[in-house]
Amino acid sequence: GWAKIDTGRPERTGAAEAVYAAGKTPEQVVGALRALREAQPGRVALATRCDAACESAVRGAFGDAVLVEAGVCAVGDFPPAEVGPLAVVCAGTSDLPVAREAEFVARANGVEVRLVADVGVAGLHRLLDRVDRLREAACVVVVAGMDGALPSVVAGLVSAPVVAVPTSVGYGAAFGGLAPLLTMLNSCSPGVSVVNIDNGFGAAMAAVRILGVKPGL
Amino acid sequence: GWAKIDTGRPERTGAAEAVYAAGKTPEQVVGALRALREAQPGRVALATRCDAACESAVRGAFGDAVLVEAGVCAVGDFPPAEVGPLAVVCAGTSDLPVAREAEFVARANGVEVRLVADVGVAGLHRLLDRVDRLREAACVVVVAGMDGALPSVVAGLVSAPVVAVPTSVGYGAAFGGLAPLLTMLNSCSPGVSVVNIDNGFGAAMAAVRILGVKPGL
Amino acid sequence: GWAKIDTGRPERTGAAEAVYAAGKTPEQVVGALRALREAQPGRVALATRCDAACESAVRGAFGDAVLVEAGVCAVGDFPPAEVGPLAVVCAGTSDLPVAREAEFVARANGVEVRLVADVGVAGLHRLLDRVDRLREAACVVVVAGMDGALPSVVAGLVSAPVVAVPTSVGYGAAFGGLAPLLTMLNSCSPGVSVVNIDNGFGAAMAAVRILGVKPGL
Amino acid sequence: GWAKIDTGRPERTGAAEAVYAAGKTPEQVVGALRALREAQPGRVALATRCDAACESAVRGAFGDAVLVEAGVCAVGDFPPAEVGPLAVVCAGTSDLPVAREAEFVARANGVEVRLVADVGVAGLHRLLDRVDRLREAACVVVVAGMDGALPSVVAGLVSAPVVAVPTSVGYGAAFGGLAPLLTMLNSCSPGVSVVNIDNGFGAAMAAVRILGVKPGL
Amino acid sequence: GWAKIDTGRPERTGAAEAVYAAGKTPEQVVGALRALREAQPGRVALATRCDAACESAVRGAFGDAVLVEAGVCAVGDFPPAEVGPLAVVCAGTSDLPVAREAEFVARANGVEVRLVADVGVAGLHRLLDRVDRLREAACVVVVAGMDGALPSVVAGLVSAPVVAVPTSVGYGAAFGGLAPLLTMLNSCSPGVSVVNIDNGFGAAMAAVRILGVKPGL
Amino acid sequence: GWAKIDTGRPERTGAAEAVYAAGKTPEQVVGALRALREAQPGRVALATRCDAACESAVRGAFGDAVLVEAGVCAVGDFPPAEVGPLAVVCAGTSDLPVAREAEFVARANGVEVRLVADVGVAGLHRLLDRVDRLREAACVVVVAGMDGALPSVVAGLVSAPVVAVPTSVGYGAAFGGLAPLLTMLNSCSPGVSVVNIDNGFGAAMAAVRILGVKPGL
Amino acid sequence: GWAKIDTGRPERTGAAEAVYAAGKTPEQVVGALRALREAQPGRVALATRCDAACESAVRGAFGDAVLVEAGVCAVGDFPPAEVGPLAVVCAGTSDLPVAREAEFVARANGVEVRLVADVGVAGLHRLLDRVDRLREAACVVVVAGMDGALPSVVAGLVSAPVVAVPTSVGYGAAFGGLAPLLTMLNSCSPGVSVVNIDNGFGAAMAAVRILGVKPGL
Amino acid sequence: GWAKIDTGRPERTGAAEAVYAAGKTPEQVVGALRALREAQPGRVALATRCDAACESAVRGAFGDAVLVEAGVCAVGDFPPAEVGPLAVVCAGTSDLPVAREAEFVARANGVEVRLVADVGVAGLHRLLDRVDRLREAACVVVVAGMDGALPSVVAGLVSAPVVAVPTSVGYGAAFGGLAPLLTMLNSCSPGVSVVNIDNGFGAAMAAVRILGVKPGL
Ligand SMILES: Nc1ncnc2c1ncn2[C@@H]1O[C@H](COP(=O)(O)O)[C@@H](O)[C@H]1O
Ligand SMILES: Nc1ncnc2c1ncn2[C@@H]1O[C@H](COP(=O)(O)O)[C@@H](O)[C@H]1O
Ligand SMILES: Nc1ncnc2c1ncn2[C@@H]1O[C@H](COP(=O)(O)O)[C@@H](O)[C@H]1O
Ligand SMILES: Nc1ncnc2c1ncn2[C@@H]1O[C@H](COP(=O)(O)O)[C@@H](O)[C@H]1O
Ligand SMILES: [Mg+2]
Ligand SMILES: [Mg+2]
Ligand SMILES: [Mg+2]
Ligand SMILES: [Mg+2]
Ligand SMILES: [Mg+2]
Ligand SMILES: [Mg+2]
Ligand SMILES: [Mg+2]
Ligand SMILES: [Mg+2]
Repeated sequence: GWAKIDTGRPERTGAAEAVYAAGKTPEQVVGALRALREAQPGRVALATRCDAACESAVRGAFGDAVLVEAGVCAVGDFPPAEVGPLAVVCAGTSDLPVAREAEFVARANGVEVRLVADVGVAGLHRLLDRVDRLREAACVVVVAGMDGALPSVVAGLVSAPVVAVPTSVGYGAAFGGLAPLLTMLNSCSPGVSVVNIDNGFGAAMAAVRILGVKPGL
Repeated sequence: GWAKIDTGRPERTGAAEAVYAAGKTPEQVVGALRALREAQPGRVALATRCDAACESAVRGAFGDAVLVEAGVCAVGDFPPAEVGPLAVVCAGTSDLPVAREAEFVARANGVEVRLVADVGVAGLHRLLDRVDRLREAACVVVVAGMDGALPSVVAGLVSAPVVAVPTSVGYGAAFGGLAPLLTMLNSCSPGVSVVNIDNGFGAAMAAVRILGVKPGL
Repeated sequence: GWAKIDTGRPERTGAAEAVYAAGKTPEQVVGALRALREAQPGRVALATRCDAACESAVRGAFGDAVLVEAGVCAVGDFPPAEVGPLAVVCAGTSDLPVAREAEFVARANGVEVRLVADVGVAGLHRLLDRVDRLREAACVVVVAGMDGALPSVVAGLVSAPVVAVPTSVGYGAAFGGLAPLLTMLNSCSPGVSVVNIDNGFGAAMAAVRILGVKPGL
Repeated sequence: GWAKIDTGRPERTGAAEAVYAAGKTPEQVVGALRALREAQPGRVALATRCDAACESAVRGAFGDAVLVEAGVCAVGDFPPAEVGPLAVVCAGTSDLPVAREAEFVARANGVEVRLVADVGVAGLHRLLDRVDRLREAACVVVVAGMDGALPSVVAGLVSAPVVAVPTSVGYGAAFGGLAPLLTMLNSCSPGVSVVNIDNGFGAAMAAVRILGVKPGL
Repeated sequence: GWAKIDTGRPERTGAAEAVYAAGKTPEQVVGALRALREAQPGRVALATRCDAACESAVRGAFGDAVLVEAGVCAVGDFPPAEVGPLAVVCAGTSDLPVAREAEFVARANGVEVRLVADVGVAGLHRLLDRVDRLREAACVVVVAGMDGALPSVVAGLVSAPVVAVPTSVGYGAAFGGLAPLLTMLNSCSPGVSVVNIDNGFGAAMAAVRILGVKPGL
Repeated sequence: GWAKIDTGRPERTGAAEAVYAAGKTPEQVVGALRALREAQPGRVALATRCDAACESAVRGAFGDAVLVEAGVCAVGDFPPAEVGPLAVVCAGTSDLPVAREAEFVARANGVEVRLVADVGVAGLHRLLDRVDRLREAACVVVVAGMDGALPSVVAGLVSAPVVAVPTSVGYGAAFGGLAPLLTMLNSCSPGVSVVNIDNGFGAAMAAVRILGVKPGL
Repeated sequence: GWAKIDTGRPERTGAAEAVYAAGKTPEQVVGALRALREAQPGRVALATRCDAACESAVRGAFGDAVLVEAGVCAVGDFPPAEVGPLAVVCAGTSDLPVAREAEFVARANGVEVRLVADVGVAGLHRLLDRVDRLREAACVVVVAGMDGALPSVVAGLVSAPVVAVPTSVGYGAAFGGLAPLLTMLNSCSPGVSVVNIDNGFGAAMAAVRILGVKPGL
Repeated sequence: GWAKIDTGRPERTGAAEAVYAAGKTPEQVVGALRALREAQPGRVALATRCDAACESAVRGAFGDAVLVEAGVCAVGDFPPAEVGPLAVVCAGTSDLPVAREAEFVARANGVEVRLVADVGVAGLHRLLDRVDRLREAACVVVVAGMDGALPSVVAGLVSAPVVAVPTSVGYGAAFGGLAPLLTMLNSCSPGVSVVNIDNGFGAAMAAVRILGVKPGL
C-alpha cells in the first residue's frame, strides 16, 4: 500500500507510535493501527483526533480491545504504570478535553497520572491549596487557554519539569490559542517548555520521554 | 502656525492635554507646551516620549518650571494629591521605566501613587506579601512584559479596577509586547482592561478618569 | 467532581463569578451554576456564551429563576441598581448583541444602564445630539466593530472613564475584530482602556469595578 | 545602462514619473532624473524618499532647478495650479511630514492644495470648526497615525472623494502603521479609499488622477 | 426604537445610505430600509450583504420595488445614469460576485458601468485587447483575488483614477484576501487606492464620489 | 530599594535565579547579583543577555569570581557536574551563540554538557555519524534557525527528551525566528517541546529540571 | 459571455490551461472547459478544486471523456508520458490528497510520475531506504504539512530540482499551513523553491516547465 | 574545531556549498571557506551575505583568488558557462542587489546569465519589448519588491520555469517583503515557484538544479 507505518518507533524513541487520524479516511486509520499491532502485538497502538466515523471503524475492526477517550482510540492493553506520578493540571473546565487527551496518552504509555482541574490563576487559592500535591509529581503538564498564565505560576512553585499546553479555549484576541501559546513561550518562570496548541498528545509524549530519563555520569 | 493645540481638553475631559513628542521637532514640542501653558497658566503641561534633544529644548524654554522622569517633561506645578491611592505594580525591574511614566503622569494629575515593583508571578510570595497593601488601593495599574501574567493574578486578589499595561520587555516570541498584550486582553480574571504596549501614560490617564468617578443615582 | 468553582470570588473581587459556557457541556454549566448558588444563595449567578442547548439545560434546572439575554443566563434576582449611570454606547445595530451582553451583566451586578445605539462616527450629528446625556454617565462602555473609531471620539467629549469593546462585526481586513481592537488600543484620546473582542461581559465587569471605586486620602 | 526609465508615463497616465530613491545609489537617482528630464524637458521630475546623500547629489547635478520638501526632490518648474482645491488634512503634528509629501507632490503636478493640520478626533471641535473649508475641496487627502479614525469622520462630513493615508506615527500596537491602515480599510463611512502606510506620494497621485476626471456621457 | 438611521447622509455626502445587513435580523434590515424610504421617498435605498432570509423579508416588505443582485437589495427606482462611464474590471470569473456588487451599487447611484471580466494578467493579451475601451472610462474599479496584480498593470495603462478591490478568491497563502490586499497597497503604479477585501460596495461608493468631482479654481 | 530579588527560588524550583539584564541599568544588574550572592553565598548567580557595559560593571564589582560566555555573567563557583550528559546540538555555526548560552547555563547548574555543532539536515550524514553519541545523552537540546527542521529529525532518532530552541538566524520569511518556532511546535516527532526564540537559557533550565527528575511509584 | 477563456495558453506557456473551479458555478466551469476543448480539441482540459456538484456537472457534460482524482476533473485523453520521471514524495498519509493532485495534473501533462508516500522525517530510515529511487528522478515534488521539514532533508540528498508544497495538515500553530510554508521558504538546503499551501496543481505545473527545459548554449 | 563543513555537497547535490556569513565571525567564514577549498581544490567556494569586515578577511586570506559582488565572496575560478541562458529579470533598480546576487551565484556555478533590469509592470511596454529575449531563456528568475506582480506577468509570456524572488524593497504594508512574497505564492500564472525574501542565492541554486535536468524515459 501507500503507507510505510513507522513500526520501529518504539525501539528507537521509547514510546508507541500514534496515528494522526485527522485528514485520513477511517480505512486508512484502521489499516495503520493494524500494521502497528502486527509489528508489535504486545504493545498498545493509538490513533489521535478521531472523529465519530473513525472511532466506529476502529471499534468495528478491533472490538473489545478498544478504549476511547478525548478522541484517542487505544487498541490493546495498557502497560502497568511504572513511572510517575505525572500531574496534569488544567486552568478551567473548558480545557478538560485537552487535559484528558494528555492523561489518556500518558496512561497508555505506562505513566501514573493525577488530574488537577479548574485551578486557574483568577482564584489563586485553588492552586495554592494543592501545592503539596503538585510538588509530589515527577513531571507536570499544565493545560490552559485564554491568558495561559497558569504554567508561569506553577513553574514558580515546583522544581519538576513543566510542559505547557496552550488550548484554543477563548475567543477574539485569543486567536485560536495564539495568545496562551505566546504567553507560555515567554514565561517568566525559567524551565517551562511548550507544545502545540491543543496538543495534549504531544505533552504526554514529552512527559513519557522525561519520566524515562536516567541521568548519571 | 500649523498646530491647533487642544487647549480646552482639561475642561472637557478632566485631565491635562499631553504633547506626544515622538515624531515632532523640539521646536514643535516647545511651541505646543507654550500654547498649553498660555491657555491654562495654572495647570501643568506634559510632553511624553521626549528624547534628550527634546528634553533639553524644554528645559531651555521653561527652566526651573520643568520636571523630567521616564521621558516625560512636566512644565508647571503639580496639583496637590487629592485622590487615590493608585497602586502601580510592576512585574520586573526591566518594566520600571513604563511604571515610572505611569506614576509620574498620575502624580502630575493630582493622584497619590504607590509603586510596588518586582513582584512577578514566578515568585508568587512576593506578591502575596503585599496583598493587603494592594487592597488599600482605589485603582491598580499593573505593568508587565514577557508573559504578562501579573494582571490576571492581581485582579483575582483585589476588587479595585485593574488597568493592565503590556511592555516591550522580552525578546523573540514576545514580538515587541504582542505576547503580554494578548495575555492581558484574554485575562481569565474579569474586569481587567488594557492599554497600548508601553503606554504608562495612557494607564495613568485611565486611572485619572477612574479616580474622578462619582457614581450615584 | 472535577471542578473547583471559585465561590469566594464575590468576597475578594466585589462581583459575581460567571461561568464561561463555551467548551463546556450543559451539565457542566448547570453544575457550576448550582455550586455558585449554593455557596451564595442570595446572589445571582451568571453563565455567558450559552448556546441553545445550554440555555435550555439551565432553564430546565432553575426554572423561573432564569433570565436570558444575548447568550447570558442569569439565575437569581438582580440586586437593586445602586450605582451608575453607566452608558453603553454602540456604533451600529450589528454591534447590539455585544452591547446587550454588557448591559445585562452590568444590571445583574446592580448598575443602572442606559443604552445608546447606532451613533457611529459616519454620521457624527447622531452622537453630538446625545453628548449631554453621555456626560451624565459615571462610566461609558463604547462598543464598535469595523473601524472602531467611536471610543476615540467619545473619550474626547466626556471626562468619565471609557472602556472600549471591539466587535467582530465587519469582514475582510477587519480580521475578526483585530482592526477595531488595534484602533482602540491606539486611541488618540488618552484614558481609553480596552477589553477583548466581543467581550461585553468583560467591559461590564470593568465598569462594576470602576463604579465601586471610593478614592480618597 | 541597467535602467529603462519609463519616460512615457506622463502620456499614458497623466502624471509625472517619480523615482523611488530608497535602495538606489545617489548616482542611480541622478541618472534616472536626468533621463526623465531629457525625455520631457518641460516637465518637472521627482524623486521620493531621498536621504541627505541623495538630496545633495541631486542638488549637485541640477543646481537651482531643485526644490526639496519632506524627502522629495523636484527638478524643474511646477506647472501652474489648474485644478483643485485639494485639502490635505492631518490628525497630529507628528503626521506632518507625510502630509507635506502629499502636498508637495500634488503641487508639483499642478494642483492647488490647502493643508489643514492637527485636527485629530480627540478634540472634535477643531475639525468641526473647519467643515465649511473642507466642503470647498474637490478632493480630500486625510493623513493619520495611531487610531487612524480621522478619515471616517471626515468622509461623513463631505461629499468629495476621500483618500486616506495611514502613518507610522505611534508605537506598540500601532505596529508601524498597521493599526491605522486597518482602521481606514474598515471605515464605516463608505467611499474612503486607502494608500500604503506613509505614502503621501501615492495619495497625491491618486488625487491628481481624481482631479483630472471629466465624467460625462 | 434602537436605531438612529442616518437619513441625512445623501445631503451630506452625495450618495445613498446603505444598510449593512450582516449581523442584523431581517426585521432590523427591513426597518432600516423603511426609515430611509420614508425620509427620502424618491431615492433608492440599499441593503448589502443580505442572505436569503434577509432578501426574502425585504421582498415581502417592499414587493415589486425590490431589485436584488450579488446580495444587494435595492428598494426604489434607480436614477438615470448621468455620469461615467465607470469600468469595472475583474481578473477571473471567481471574482465576478464582487465585481457585480460594485456594478450594481454604482448603477443604483446613477453611474453608467461597463463590466470587463476575466482579463487576469496570466494572459495579458486579453487585457491589452481592451485597452482602448478602458481608456474611455472616467474611473476604473479593478477587482482581483489571488496575486492581485491586475490593478498595477491597469493603472500603468490608463490615466483615470483606479480603485482596487482585493477579493477573498484563493486559498492557502491568500489568507482570505490578505495577499491581494497587500499587493494593491504596494502597487508600483502610483495613484492606485484600495478598499477592503470583497468590498465591491465601497469601491462603487468611492467611484460615485470621484465621478461627482468638479475641480476648478 | 525597588527590587525584591527572588532569593528563595533555588529552594523552591531547584535551580539558580538568573537576572535578565536586558532593559536594566548595569547598577541594577550588579545590585541584583549582589542580593542573590548574599542570600546564597555558596551558589553561583547568573545574569543573562548582558551587553558590554553590563559585563564590565559585573567584572568591576565581583572581579575574579566572574566567568562570562555568550552574554551570560556567572558570579561564583560552578557546582561539580553530577547529572547528564546533556547534548546541545546545533544546526549551523550561526546558531552557536545560542547553543553556547545553553551550554554555559547548564554547566553552571551542575550538568555535564556535550556540544555537537553544525549538523544541519541539509547534510544528513553529519548527524547520522553522531547518532550513537546522541543516544548516550540523557537529554538533548536542539538549537536551529532558518527552517528549524533539526529537532524533528533528532527526536526521531533518540528516546531522550528533546528541548528545541528556535533561533533568529536567517532573514526574510524567517521573521526573526518565527519560522523555526512554528516548525518546532508542529514537529512530526512526538515529544519535542519548545522554548522561546534564542532562549538558550530557558532550554538549559528545562534540562536542569528534567535531569533532576526521580520518577518512581 | 462574461468569460474570456485563455485558450492560447498552451502555445505560450507549454501547458494546458486549468479552470479554477472554486468560487465558480458548475455552469461556469462546464462552459470554461467547453471553450478550452473547442479551441484545442486534441488537448486535455482540466478543472481543479471541484466539489461534488461541479464534478457531477462535468461528468454530465462530457461523459466518458472525464477522469477525476483529488478534486481535479480532466476532460480528454492524456498525452503519452514523454518526460520524467517526476517523484512526488509526501510526508504522511494525510498529505496524500495534495500529492495526488500533483501526480494527476503532471500525468495529464505527459509526465511519468512515481509517488513515494509516508516518508516523514520522524522515521528517517523510511526515506533513506528510498534514496536511490529518488536519485533517479529528474525532478522531485515534496509535499508535507505540520513541520514541513521533509524538503530540506530530500534536497540535501538529491541533485534534481525540488519543488516544495506545504499542506494545511496539522492544527493549532500550523495556522492552516503557514508553519510548513515558512519552513520551506527558509530551507537550509539551497535550491528548494516553494508553491502555495495545498497547491499540488502548481507544483505539477512547475515540474512540467522544469521537465521541458532544454538548456544549452 | 566546532564546524563540520559539508564538503561532500557538490557530489550529492550538484552545486557548490555556500557559507552563510551572517551571524558568523570573519574567522569562522574564512575557516569554512578554507575547509571547502581543501576538500575540493578545483571548485569555487562561496560565502553569501558578507559584510565589509568579512569581505576584507576573505580577501586577506585568499588574495587574488577572490571575486566579490553583492555581498557574495567567491574563492577560486568559475567553471566555464555550459548551461543556460538563464534570464534574471528585475522590476526596479532598487531590486538590483538581489538580482546581482542571483546572477553572480549562477555564473559561479557555470550558468550563462542575462540580466534584464527595470521592467516593472507599471510600464508594461518595457517588458513587452523584451519578450523575445525572455523566450530564449531556458530558465527565468524574476526579482521584484513592492507589489511583486512581475512574475505573474512573465510566467504568462514564457514556457520556461519561473523562479520568483520577492525583495524587501518597499515600505509600510510591504512588511519587509511579505507583500511580494504572498503575491508570488498566489500567482495566477501556474508554474511559478518562490524562494525566500531577498534570496537571490537560493533562486540561483534552484536555477542550477533546473538547468542540470536531463529528463527522459
Ligand atoms: N494529535 C497529534 N498531534 C501531533 N502529532 C501527532 C498526533 N497524533 C500523532 N502524531 C504524530 O504525527 C506524526 C504523523 O502522523 P501520521 O500522518 O499518522 O504518520 C506521527 O509521527 C505521530 O507520532
Ligand atoms: N505617550 C503617549 N501615548 C499615547 N498617546 C499620547 C501620548 N502622549 C500624548 N498622547 C496623546 O496623543 C494625542 C496626539 O498628540 P499630538 O500629536 O501631540 O497632538 C494627544 O491627544 C495626546 O493626548
Ligand atoms: N514614495 C513612493 N512610494 C511608492 N511608490 C513610489 C514612490 N516613489 C516612486 N514610486 C513609484 O515606484 C515605482 C518604482 O520606482 P523605480 O524603482 O524608481 O522605478 C515607480 O513607478 C514610481 O512611480
Ligand atoms: N544567502 C543564503 N540564503 C539562504 N541560505 C544560504 C545562504 N547562504 C548559504 N546558505 C545555506 O545555508 C546553510 C547553512 O549555512 P552554514 O551556517 O554556513 O552551514 C548552508 O547549507 C548553505 O547552503
Ligand atoms: Mg473556572
Ligand atoms: Mg525579577
Ligand atoms: Mg447605522
Ligand atoms: Mg495634537
Ligand atoms: Mg480565467
Ligand atoms: Mg553549515
Ligand atoms: Mg506516518
Ligand atoms: Mg523604475
